[in-house]
Amino acid sequence: MKRTLGTCYYPEHWPESQWAEDAARMAAIGLTWVRIGEFAWSRMEPTPGQYDWAWLDRAIDTLIAHGLKVVLGTPTATPPRWMLDRHPDMLALDANGHKRGFGSRRHYCFSHQGYIAECARITTDLAKRYGARVAAWQTDNEYGCHDTTVSYSDAARHAFRDWLAQKYQSPAALNRAWGNVFWSMEYADFAEIDLPNLTVTEANPAHAMDFRRFSSDQVARFNRVQTDIIRRHSTAPISHNYMGAVVDFDHFATGADLEIATWDSYPLGFLSDRIAASADHKRDFARQGDPDFQAFHHDLYRAVGAMRSGRAASGGRWWIMEQQPGPVNWAPFNPDPLPGMARLWAWEAFAHGAEAVCYFRWRQAPFAQEQMHAGMLRPDSEPAPAYHAAAEVAQELAAMPDVEHTTPPIALIFDYASAWAWATQPQGRGFDYFNVVFGFYKGLRRLGLSVDILPPSVTDLSAYKLVLAPAIATLPDALITALAACPSALIGPRSNSKTPEFSIPNPLPPNLPGLDCVVARVETLPPDLPVPLAQGGTFHLWREKLEGSAQVIEETTDGWPALVAHGGLHYLAGLPDEVALARILTRLCAAQGIEAAALPEGLRCRQSGTRTFWFNYAAVEVTHAGHTLPPAGVAWD
Amino acid sequence: MKRTLGTCYYPEHWPESQWAEDAARMAAIGLTWVRIGEFAWSRMEPTPGQYDWAWLDRAIDTLIAHGLKVVLGTPTATPPRWMLDRHPDMLALDANGHKRGFGSRRHYCFSHQGYIAECARITTDLAKRYGARVAAWQTDNEYGCHDTTVSYSDAARHAFRDWLAQKYQSPAALNRAWGNVFWSMEYADFAEIDLPNLTVTEANPAHAMDFRRFSSDQVARFNRVQTDIIRRHSTAPISHNYMGAVVDFDHFATGADLEIATWDSYPLGFLSDRIAASADHKRDFARQGDPDFQAFHHDLYRAVGAMRSGRAASGGRWWIMEQQPGPVNWAPFNPDPLPGMARLWAWEAFAHGAEAVCYFRWRQAPFAQEQMHAGMLRPDSEPAPAYHAAAEVAQELAAMPDVEHTTPPIALIFDYASAWAWATQPQGRGFDYFNVVFGFYKGLRRLGLSVDILPPSVTDLSAYKLVLAPAIATLPDALITALAACPSALIGPRSNSKTPEFSIPNPLPPNLPGLDCVVARVETLPPDLPVPLAQGGTFHLWREKLEGSAQVIEETTDGWPALVAHGGLHYLAGLPDEVALARILTRLCAAQGIEAAALPEGLRCRQSGTRTFWFNYAAVEVTHAGHTLPPAGVAWD
Amino acid sequence: MKRTLGTCYYPEHWPESQWAEDAARMAAIGLTWVRIGEFAWSRMEPTPGQYDWAWLDRAIDTLIAHGLKVVLGTPTATPPRWMLDRHPDMLALDANGHKRGFGSRRHYCFSHQGYIAECARITTDLAKRYGARVAAWQTDNEYGCHDTTVSYSDAARHAFRDWLAQKYQSPAALNRAWGNVFWSMEYADFAEIDLPNLTVTEANPAHAMDFRRFSSDQVARFNRVQTDIIRRHSTAPISHNYMGAVVDFDHFATGADLEIATWDSYPLGFLSDRIAASADHKRDFARQGDPDFQAFHHDLYRAVGAMRSGRAASGGRWWIMEQQPGPVNWAPFNPDPLPGMARLWAWEAFAHGAEAVCYFRWRQAPFAQEQMHAGMLRPDSEPAPAYHAAAEVAQELAAMPDVEHTTPPIALIFDYASAWAWATQPQGRGFDYFNVVFGFYKGLRRLGLSVDILPPSVTDLSAYKLVLAPAIATLPDALITALAACPSALIGPRSNSKTPEFSIPNPLPPNLPGLDCVVARVETLPPDLPVPLAQGGTFHLWREKLEGSAQVIEETTDGWPALVAHGGLHYLAGLPDEVALARILTRLCAAQGIEAAALPEGLRCRQSGTRTFWFNYAAVEVTHAGHTLPPAGVAWD
Repeated sequence: MKRTLGTCYYPEHWPESQWAEDAARMAAIGLTWVRIGEFAWSRMEPTPGQYDWAWLDRAIDTLIAHGLKVVLGTPTATPPRWMLDRHPDMLALDANGHKRGFGSRRHYCFSHQGYIAECARITTDLAKRYGARVAAWQTDNEYGCHDTTVSYSDAARHAFRDWLAQKYQSPAALNRAWGNVFWSMEYADFAEIDLPNLTVTEANPAHAMDFRRFSSDQVARFNRVQTDIIRRHSTAPISHNYMGAVVDFDHFATGADLEIATWDSYPLGFLSDRIAASADHKRDFARQGDPDFQAFHHDLYRAVGAMRSGRAASGGRWWIMEQQPGPVNWAPFNPDPLPGMARLWAWEAFAHGAEAVCYFRWRQAPFAQEQMHAGMLRPDSEPAPAYHAAAEVAQELAAMPDVEHTTPPIALIFDYASAWAWATQPQGRGFDYFNVVFGFYKGLRRLGLSVDILPPSVTDLSAYKLVLAPAIATLPDALITALAACPSALIGPRSNSKTPEFSIPNPLPPNLPGLDCVVARVETLPPDLPVPLAQGGTFHLWREKLEGSAQVIEETTDGWPALVAHGGLHYLAGLPDEVALARILTRLCAAQGIEAAALPEGLRCRQSGTRTFWFNYAAVEVTHAGHTLPPAGVAWD
Repeated sequence: MKRTLGTCYYPEHWPESQWAEDAARMAAIGLTWVRIGEFAWSRMEPTPGQYDWAWLDRAIDTLIAHGLKVVLGTPTATPPRWMLDRHPDMLALDANGHKRGFGSRRHYCFSHQGYIAECARITTDLAKRYGARVAAWQTDNEYGCHDTTVSYSDAARHAFRDWLAQKYQSPAALNRAWGNVFWSMEYADFAEIDLPNLTVTEANPAHAMDFRRFSSDQVARFNRVQTDIIRRHSTAPISHNYMGAVVDFDHFATGADLEIATWDSYPLGFLSDRIAASADHKRDFARQGDPDFQAFHHDLYRAVGAMRSGRAASGGRWWIMEQQPGPVNWAPFNPDPLPGMARLWAWEAFAHGAEAVCYFRWRQAPFAQEQMHAGMLRPDSEPAPAYHAAAEVAQELAAMPDVEHTTPPIALIFDYASAWAWATQPQGRGFDYFNVVFGFYKGLRRLGLSVDILPPSVTDLSAYKLVLAPAIATLPDALITALAACPSALIGPRSNSKTPEFSIPNPLPPNLPGLDCVVARVETLPPDLPVPLAQGGTFHLWREKLEGSAQVIEETTDGWPALVAHGGLHYLAGLPDEVALARILTRLCAAQGIEAAALPEGLRCRQSGTRTFWFNYAAVEVTHAGHTLPPAGVAWD
Repeated sequence: MKRTLGTCYYPEHWPESQWAEDAARMAAIGLTWVRIGEFAWSRMEPTPGQYDWAWLDRAIDTLIAHGLKVVLGTPTATPPRWMLDRHPDMLALDANGHKRGFGSRRHYCFSHQGYIAECARITTDLAKRYGARVAAWQTDNEYGCHDTTVSYSDAARHAFRDWLAQKYQSPAALNRAWGNVFWSMEYADFAEIDLPNLTVTEANPAHAMDFRRFSSDQVARFNRVQTDIIRRHSTAPISHNYMGAVVDFDHFATGADLEIATWDSYPLGFLSDRIAASADHKRDFARQGDPDFQAFHHDLYRAVGAMRSGRAASGGRWWIMEQQPGPVNWAPFNPDPLPGMARLWAWEAFAHGAEAVCYFRWRQAPFAQEQMHAGMLRPDSEPAPAYHAAAEVAQELAAMPDVEHTTPPIALIFDYASAWAWATQPQGRGFDYFNVVFGFYKGLRRLGLSVDILPPSVTDLSAYKLVLAPAIATLPDALITALAACPSALIGPRSNSKTPEFSIPNPLPPNLPGLDCVVARVETLPPDLPVPLAQGGTFHLWREKLEGSAQVIEETTDGWPALVAHGGLHYLAGLPDEVALARILTRLCAAQGIEAAALPEGLRCRQSGTRTFWFNYAAVEVTHAGHTLPPAGVAWD
């Protein structure tokens, strides 16, 4: 298929006299897409009920006239100031009970019915007016960004009680499910249940976990109001731009209502802010981004993009809606990317199956919150590095036969609910589901392997030789069956260790078919107290003591099983460090005839359907497999 | 006397069909005690005034029928949800003014009269119904845990004003005592006085200190309501289970209303969370606990347990009510104890005079907040390591002649009010009374010495050859007299440096009989700026510059007196590090003919009346004094 | 002119019987000034409208009778408790919306009209009664201390809306200036605008910046109410005692209403708490203070003291109103100053032009918040080290011909608004305007140079050969003209990078006359990612990539210009480390014939009009330029 480029544009930020020249320059360097509209509510509807569509009509006319395709965003992430007069209680509250007020963005609670009705109204207006003209839609903007998935407002409280009543039907059933007899926490009525904040010590984890499930559901429900309306008036595909490393709501659930998954990729800020990594690693990749973080999200959103169509995860539709173009403004430190990275990032996305990559944003805004965020143009309209990078990629794409995806032999399961489970109950400081799964993913990538990421709802794994499913709190029965049927599966640690009610199951975990082992007890380890494995490397942070007769493949030096198996089904009893993980993965791959060999530091590769791509994230030149790549270099076979 | 074992059990958590088997297994491994009831209010009184005693009757019947003795807890740490409808203002407020709500435990303010009346009611019911059947009582659970001693509620504010009016009689007297002329803080009426939170900069320390005194008094008053009621209906001894390292209220004061002091001993969590120690020390003892922390509390609670009876501190009655059995759930990291520690901890308690050690809890609960807290049984009812350890200790106890306590030659004064004083006015970051006193205690223990801990109200020290009284803000006159009469006493630093009104005394401190020295000024020292002593070692954190003609025994390298004396009365002018402390203590012991010699790392000993016990806290084998102890080893002469 | 000494005294803290002896001792050691009254409102007006002046009359009588001159402070930093009953809404609110209550000091919001009226009333009373007797006045005490410049109260909200309406005249104009079209933040009415706290993510920086400007204006307005009143009744000069390193309000603006600028100098606390410096530096100077921090403030307040008179900045009138005498109570650690420092600090102030140095305080108060703060006397009235130091300095002053100031060849611009700008938008963690400018100042001082500090309103720089103006957000046109006319000027980094509306200017910065360069983009650097310069040293934290044809004087090793010039106008493209700064300053000085050579570690000098003073801040003896100075030594040529 054809891979394309685009940008994000805010006609309302610039004099109308500049629009045509901007559009002409976009087209001239080979951009296809322009996303607009997603923050412009105060210009679409300056006062309640008084619309001004004329400027937006002309902006869309201008862009289309220059051959560009328009992605139109609903403006619901930024309700205007007058909205608060109509709905004073629409604001979210933080965990301390403080209102999260007007003056930036995302100042709404997902559970507020009045605000949802306003969103339905403006979405209806937009869909009716532009449904036939736009090439794609975006709902809202970056759900969950700025920690906005969860709200402790009255609207959320009432909605949560209703949600619980639906789920449990009676307070007695809820009390049993949560174990409220513990500490006399039993409720006589759903109306007695508060949100799980501001308790003396931690709330019941079952309470907290249900509140996280509810909060995720509210995002999907909010989004569905808009997709239902848009579909009545438009056949253009609908997308949402997810934010990297935000796992507070289930993207697979919202994905089921969207044709295209898109994500906003800011490699430098993410490395600095959202990855558990050593200081050395953060320094070495400060101008390039983590070598695996982008690919992980590419693979994840490919799966999210497949949810609505029902096609295989490998074939999901996805984009980068916002690609970092240069230094940004929001990380603790904001260095300039290494020359070439804006090209590398785009090519890596295409190699993972992206349909489009849009740089954020066309021109750096000289005012307001993001004035220090680079664009493709400087504030004085001169080209910034990403302008040239985009032009170069556009030319390369034109010369490149289609980049088709393929299904790799390895898959990894990603389960949002487990992220909530272990955030609710880390048991050891820093036990974070995203970083646990990402660690396994990195281990695969360092061995040169390409990976599909799959939702926990998957029931057919027959396309894969090896499937990893670490740290999933509750394995669905169908997934257990599918894993057991795989040529090779690696499960654990902490897998299947909770019931759906967030209790410890009986029989004890992992309770996998044919694998005679139970987790007799677990321990969490301070960073300076890892447990060595007999064959090298360590378990860190988390380790389990297994009992049972399952075949022991590796042991710890203190004499406990580290890796056990029954046929192709493997269970790992702790969090492996890089050394241990590399050995274990190499062993599993070898058994399945999958080629795996350590790549040089910073080099990564991706097998697409038609060719192998190489990406050099290192700040030094790397030679490997017949390619010599400079820093930020890209090559393909 | 006979030493016994027990456990904590929650019949309301399990099917009634399981009770008899549980009781039989307890009895079979040699347990004597079962504590029940302390969190079961919502089952005792499911709706206000509607009681359900039948289940508790049957549970107690079952336990007694198996030969077990019941400790019954009042359930007042966990008021049911309906209590809040009756007393919406019963919740404590934190220092920011946020309500500390329902959903976990300890959600009440000690000053709320309405809630106190409810506690009196349920205690009366329990005492009447079970007063003749239970073998011991426990009031509430872990007063002060989760930082709950202090509340900033309206109830606390009004009670504090009354408390101040009682104490000072007139606002003018209070203004004088606090020095309110400073910064125009004078009050015209007690009703003008707020709690000392939310001030622009720090509140007057005299104000803060009186609020701490008041808050401590409220705990004692709350507890006394229950003990008064229980005694009307029962002759069984009454206990409370104190939490380790909680010093926000005066345990000696509550102790005066209780026959038995008990404490909840979690060595691994305490080491990680509550002790000022090096990272190396925390790593080396991560699976054993600090070698002195448990002993310190044993000695402290032995003194607390003597308050009501009036017997000598050495002979106080005390238990461990909750003994860590395996990994817990609440510390930053929760490693598995070294095999053998569950036995060592129990024996160490007995060697210090414990009457009973109860493991917490019988069976790990698979649900709610403590589902990751180990028990004697796993959630699937299989034995966990502590089950076997308890059985082993029970057998050893049966074979052991009585372990009698004796009075050691050394005593250490512990004064809760000084903990509040230095928390109010640390003057140097990290100046923490508990850790200061614990440092002196560790110094004694590293020399193989056994210690009595005494309250500041002690007036007769004639049983001791050497008494340490560091950092007591205000030395009572009677204590000064007793110290001066000792063969040897070590006082300072920071001793007697405040008046009861929390001012600097005039004459300046230490103002001790016959000792001609004054603290001309003090300084606090960053960690990288210790002051070396001429004979080795340093003062760290705190040092004083002394003037006067007292005999100088040690000096700092910058030429100031470090240790001065008049006869047996010694004053120390700073916080000594390990090297300096060991030398000074060795010198003082030698002068009194007390044998003192450094023990190997991690080895500790305790002289009971009949024998010497040895405990190896090290992770390696240790040979000393004819004993070779493996890690976690216990030996006795 | 004659240099004098003084102290701060609180007659209301002591028995009246002690006053005469205190005054006699002050006079006997050569003190001239006594500051009184500034916290005594509750004694001046014990109940609303009921005054008690008798004690203050007698106190002033006593002091004057002993030949002392009285500085009288208005007591408005400490409104009595009854004030809150009259004005319950007078308290400031913090950024979380919590009230900053009664119980310490500075518990008022600068915008509260009711409280301002009360301050006017008491000031009128004082000015009328004592206007003819006192030798100088002080308004309030330490504006801004304890983070009190900014308040989020209702009073502040309403005043801010009025301030904005005055400034912008229409909401449309404000929306354009702030760029509120971004994220639909547009306002239809000034009454819709809230304070910039409690937003979901950061507020618009233009909004935040205007709120900081407003907050600063409110301080100047508050102060002016008092100065206007005092001048009606007294000809004595009026001062305010600024707190070191408080930059939340514009001291030049308040300075325009005051004859004398004074500041409160606590070298040890400031080093520990308010300076960005290495741990080694903080340890090495823990008992002396930073070698440049005091001098920086001396030079700054000399300029502030010139604002009202209009005389040259070199000739401004200034004092130290509170000089640290010994250990204080408020820093994380409070060591004892090295013997001699209380003398060194005074002499360094005189060498920089101070008219008077007053030690805080006469006698250490044994009660209330500052009981651990040393005085000239101990609480028992015995002399503390500062008593002897003051006596020594008084004798030396008597023997010393006048210390006249002169105008040095080098000036540095200090702009409070830039401190607010970069606090609003640091872009890199730790980019702090005070520490940036202080870094350049230290660079000059390490080369033995004396410096004038100037406000950004300066229009004539003809007295100087070299002027530094780093990091000023918006350079006024007149200042640009003056800098361009200098023999040599060093501008940048980050200079002139904002419009007055807090946008990025177009043309891009620095936009200086004749200097063909633009900042194409900027990056902020983590501490472990500095950018090396080709000639040695590095840029750290902040660096810019310059384009244009300006002459390149230095380069980075990655090939970008580091220092460019057009004639004498230099622009620096990053924050230099010590090595790079020393080289660049040496080069600039050499070009102007200014002698500059690195001084030994800890040694500093100051050229006054008549002689050169040397100060040894090192803890070791230093020999240089014919002088051998012991630790804390002072010498002059």
